[in-house]
Amino acid sequence: MAGIVKYASLFGILACGSVMLSDARADEGMWTMDNLPVRQLAERYNFTPTQKWIEHVTKSSARLALGCSASFVSADGLVMTNHHCANTCLQQLSDSKHNYFQDGYYTASPAQEQNCPAMELNQLDSITDVTDRMQAALKGKDGEAYTKARQAEESAIEKECAGTDAKTWRCEVVSLYHGGRIALYKYHRYQDVRMVMAPDQNAAFFGGDPDNFNFPRYDLDMAFLRVYENGKPAKVSSYLPFDPVGPAAGQLVFTSGNPGSTERELPLADLEFRRNVMVPFVTDAYSALDGVLWQYSRESASHRQEAQERIFGIENSLKVFRGRVPVLADSKFLMAKVKSETELKNWINADPERQKLYGDPWAKNTQAIAVEEQIFKPYMMLERSSGLGGDLFAYAKLLVRAADERQKPDASRLSAYHDANLPALEAELASVAPVYPELEKTELAFSLTRLRQVLGADSKLTQLVLAKSSPEELANELVGGTKLADPAVRLALWKGGVKAIAASDDPMIVLARKIEPEARNLRHQMDDDVLAPSRQASEAMAKARFARDGMASYPDATFTQRLSFGQVKGWNEDGRAIPPFTYFSGLYERATGADPYKLSQPWVDAKAHLNMKTPFDFVSTNDIIGGNSGSPVIDTQGHAVGLIFDGNIHSLGGDFFYDESNNRAVAVDSAAIIEALKVVYKDQALADELVKGHL
Amino acid sequence: MAGIVKYASLFGILACGSVMLSDARADEGMWTMDNLPVRQLAERYNFTPTQKWIEHVTKSSARLALGCSASFVSADGLVMTNHHCANTCLQQLSDSKHNYFQDGYYTASPAQEQNCPAMELNQLDSITDVTDRMQAALKGKDGEAYTKARQAEESAIEKECAGTDAKTWRCEVVSLYHGGRIALYKYHRYQDVRMVMAPDQNAAFFGGDPDNFNFPRYDLDMAFLRVYENGKPAKVSSYLPFDPVGPAAGQLVFTSGNPGSTERELPLADLEFRRNVMVPFVTDAYSALDGVLWQYSRESASHRQEAQERIFGIENSLKVFRGRVPVLADSKFLMAKVKSETELKNWINADPERQKLYGDPWAKNTQAIAVEEQIFKPYMMLERSSGLGGDLFAYAKLLVRAADERQKPDASRLSAYHDANLPALEAELASVAPVYPELEKTELAFSLTRLRQVLGADSKLTQLVLAKSSPEELANELVGGTKLADPAVRLALWKGGVKAIAASDDPMIVLARKIEPEARNLRHQMDDDVLAPSRQASEAMAKARFARDGMASYPDATFTQRLSFGQVKGWNEDGRAIPPFTYFSGLYERATGADPYKLSQPWVDAKAHLNMKTPFDFVSTNDIIGGNSGSPVIDTQGHAVGLIFDGNIHSLGGDFFYDESNNRAVAVDSAAIIEALKVVYKDQALADELVKGHL
Repeated sequence: MAGIVKYASLFGILACGSVMLSDARADEGMWTMDNLPVRQLAERYNFTPTQKWIEHVTKSSARLALGCSASFVSADGLVMTNHHCANTCLQQLSDSKHNYFQDGYYTASPAQEQNCPAMELNQLDSITDVTDRMQAALKGKDGEAYTKARQAEESAIEKECAGTDAKTWRCEVVSLYHGGRIALYKYHRYQDVRMVMAPDQNAAFFGGDPDNFNFPRYDLDMAFLRVYENGKPAKVSSYLPFDPVGPAAGQLVFTSGNPGSTERELPLADLEFRRNVMVPFVTDAYSALDGVLWQYSRESASHRQEAQERIFGIENSLKVFRGRVPVLADSKFLMAKVKSETELKNWINADPERQKLYGDPWAKNTQAIAVEEQIFKPYMMLERSSGLGGDLFAYAKLLVRAADERQKPDASRLSAYHDANLPALEAELASVAPVYPELEKTELAFSLTRLRQVLGADSKLTQLVLAKSSPEELANELVGGTKLADPAVRLALWKGGVKAIAASDDPMIVLARKIEPEARNLRHQMDDDVLAPSRQASEAMAKARFARDGMASYPDATFTQRLSFGQVKGWNEDGRAIPPFTYFSGLYERATGADPYKLSQPWVDAKAHLNMKTPFDFVSTNDIIGGNSGSPVIDTQGHAVGLIFDGNIHSLGGDFFYDESNNRAVAVDSAAIIEALKVVYKDQALADELVKGHL
Repeated sequence: MAGIVKYASLFGILACGSVMLSDARADEGMWTMDNLPVRQLAERYNFTPTQKWIEHVTKSSARLALGCSASFVSADGLVMTNHHCANTCLQQLSDSKHNYFQDGYYTASPAQEQNCPAMELNQLDSITDVTDRMQAALKGKDGEAYTKARQAEESAIEKECAGTDAKTWRCEVVSLYHGGRIALYKYHRYQDVRMVMAPDQNAAFFGGDPDNFNFPRYDLDMAFLRVYENGKPAKVSSYLPFDPVGPAAGQLVFTSGNPGSTERELPLADLEFRRNVMVPFVTDAYSALDGVLWQYSRESASHRQEAQERIFGIENSLKVFRGRVPVLADSKFLMAKVKSETELKNWINADPERQKLYGDPWAKNTQAIAVEEQIFKPYMMLERSSGLGGDLFAYAKLLVRAADERQKPDASRLSAYHDANLPALEAELASVAPVYPELEKTELAFSLTRLRQVLGADSKLTQLVLAKSSPEELANELVGGTKLADPAVRLALWKGGVKAIAASDDPMIVLARKIEPEARNLRHQMDDDVLAPSRQASEAMAKARFARDGMASYPDATFTQRLSFGQVKGWNEDGRAIPPFTYFSGLYERATGADPYKLSQPWVDAKAHLNMKTPFDFVSTNDIIGGNSGSPVIDTQGHAVGLIFDGNIHSLGGDFFYDESNNRAVAVDSAAIIEALKVVYKDQALADELVKGHL
């Protein structure tokens, strides 16, 4: 693949229009709690958050370790998140008699609240600046030395932080502003999280994939959990009491959540790599797998149930990737990026001292991308799951690598295997979630077919994996022969470490062992020759921007707590105004009786008793991204007025830039939650627990 | 979607490297027989074709009307093409006892040669220049008026040409050099084409999808047909005798075939539309369908057989589209395009007379693309088959539209419905090819799911198609209720015309009728507001180029006869030399016993008797593209030395430009064909018929 079109070098003669990458007048930003956009809030909304308000919001917020946001909504440890964030637990609790994912989960008393096996909730306890310490450790290092030093210092800091009580404390070193600031986040970890209530899937995900990322919308995408300590509901000091009325159009609202990642500071060259290589590769792979699972689901009711969570995940990711295509092809956006980079470059080059300090990070980055183009496909196939799909191989790979890593001093390990993360890995291996052999064979055979297709039948890696077998034969042999579906077998291998792994003749372990050297090799190339130099390049750019602009902006998302602000507001689509609210009445109009527009029986029965004017879902200008799922929507008084569960289709471009004209967050209205709990699910107690404390 | 990055306007300051879009020194070009690259052939290969040689090659060549190339290879009407070009016939001749597609088709005498129901072979009879006549008819017309005038004049010319004997003559107006030359192609049509011999699928497509578009290769992708007249093998005056030895490395070879289409003159703005919109959309859709059919095939042996031809087509198209991605992202290529366009623009603008004559075709084209961006997805969904898949709906749509079109005077019809094309359409409807209800339901349900996903559940078009049904329900209802699987029912509706269509309560016809106004509307927008202005823009650019350069180059491919030249030669891949030939020995080394690397029994049995040093497949620098499948490889003496069946992966970029460094055509060696016929298939008679006449 050839080089990169140098827009940047052409900037001098461009008329760049009026798009700004960061417009302080917009409702833009995922702000850290210690650097809120006070000026914008005062100017646009005449609101100034007090220290008390900030603390209340901070402490009432939480995240699910596996990748969602949440909030405390009662003094008794009640937690609100999305149904789609509790999917895995609902599946795991289900058995041949109960399909909680499909039918919902209901409890009449705390005694019925069952533990979610693999779930962990984190509540932020403190943030400490460790920029100086990290920078001292990394000074003058490059490539592998840089990666290792980074791992070592992070590990040391995290270990010191968690101390001897890694069961209670989770510590993470987080790089903000691409290394401009490095902070240690210390979380209180709750590992006893129980299921309190989840509605049926038809209500939670009404409209299914067709409506996902769209609006108008009629979803009750909620789930309630409770954290326990010492076998009892945990008492929490901060929580968000429910406003049973919900927000008004135009009202200022906040979301406090953990946006996973954004790439708003991404250099142009990386955007082009995404457009030309990454996005086509990933959408292609996901589309094909989506087709496989779509057909798999049609084969029987059990296949349908087995695959549904996976399909949800894939279709969701697909929309995310497809949603990025228009932005990556948008010349106005790209030109604004050119402008921003050129200005920064000129600012550096205007001063020999700055040149010396920052160097030419763009050149360094371009070199890293050239390596990435070479190794991207084999890396995705062998080191990520693209070429070896399914849970069973993932278990095998985890066991093989973890055994090896755990032998090393903590500081020398890959970050996922630091002592601080071992409890989570062990919990994953101990999961009693069912493994479906037919689904495993299907995913594995298909991914092996892709591997051969993408890397070529003659490639060394294809030969290593397949030898003389066909994908179908190998998948049957591996899934048929492995014992890794049994959590006890996995835990024994985990506990047995390198010896047990080396002695194992489990075919899945044997394969994972065989490809481990190549997979590791690719991983090291990616870490040392791509990620390390491009991270260093980003850091140099970020530092230069800092030196020029100060803390005027917010850092890219890092799955740490952020506050977004905005107002409840619709947008214009092809000249048509999309109003900000939907109502219960619209749900019944949209219901066709056919999946995914089918109502469950409780909703059919409740029709006559519901207040049809109750607002259901709403959109707001809040700047959110994946990871914000489950974030509360909060009013200026610190009450919960809604529950984020999605963004509209335009918000997907928010990965790269926020466009206030049409990027919208989608939330369930607090009024809908209360009305549905009372009338549809007849759970007055839960409704009461939610509104208790509301002024 | 925002506008187009104006590389063109930036050209002034670019250092453009050395890529030329058309390099007269390369083995480039798909030349018309009346404008062969005489200078290049003399300079590079010291060869000057005689008039006799040209006529011999022209008359020995043929095409299959449905989209492949072929050649006459004996005086008794024997025709050579690819196995994959005879797929459909092999499927159609198969029944519950015979799977000719899988197992091969063998005959001991002409009496056993069965008719291929839907196959038509065309032999070029004459070419007449009609440029002046067409230009006179189109003068001063735009949009709908232009489209209509064009249709009318083409129809008139074709009608005059075929005269009263449309069964014998097929006439087509072809626009060469994007309208720089317009020519009438008159073909002798052979509609009695019979199957003589086809090997088993394992031999024809050894390596399957993983090896497709790759090399080294070991495929015997051949089929032999025979044209009949009045029930007897047709006598032909020109044919290519087989050279039983095959070509040598470095030897000059020609391919005479019918490349389907190339886009080497495509403006930059169109390339960007392809990169940003079309290619992502199509690969996404095909990947997903490929996944569906992959899983469908695993469900049973019959499902596997039902879907295999469809899967081959989709995977082939997928590779073609994926193969375009690197070229569309190649900045060197794009910059060379900028250079070429800028030079032409400057040439026009240097002279007020030229400005008046050619106008600003780039501006016109950009406007057309803006419309295309608006209607592309609905057009693909409703008017093309993306949203309504399967054969049954295609039949319904054809019947509904044809009934309406046939009422109009020939000159006012859409081009597919001119009188000249009606016999082919009727043959399609009369096809006894089996329709598989499960496969139909699957494809239809899936495409309807895509339609709702792509256009949105709330869109007018989705509502029109689905109303309150789910995709699954509607597909079941339509496929379950329609009688269109029966050719007699289809022919009755065809013969009954508008009355029969209006009276039909066949659910598939009812749906096709219901969406016809919207589908037509999209078609007219595409024809009048996109294709007409962009065609006019291309014509203006082509005329300007003509006026400046004359006939120095070849026209873009148009599925008409072209000659390519080149030499038998490997290439370098990641620094590794790929040799030009494979040998029988390599086939046996590659065979793993597992599909698609499995040998059929005849090959297993023949192993001890074959000359393992026989060359199998080879690559050459000949410039080919889809449509060239089945082209003979011809030496300077007019003998057949091979059979084109593929290009390597790099040749896929050949849609946009030819790169001699790594674009390669892939052919079966004539020596392999003779050896396999004699030793594996024990068909000495056919081998003798092929080499007869070889000097």
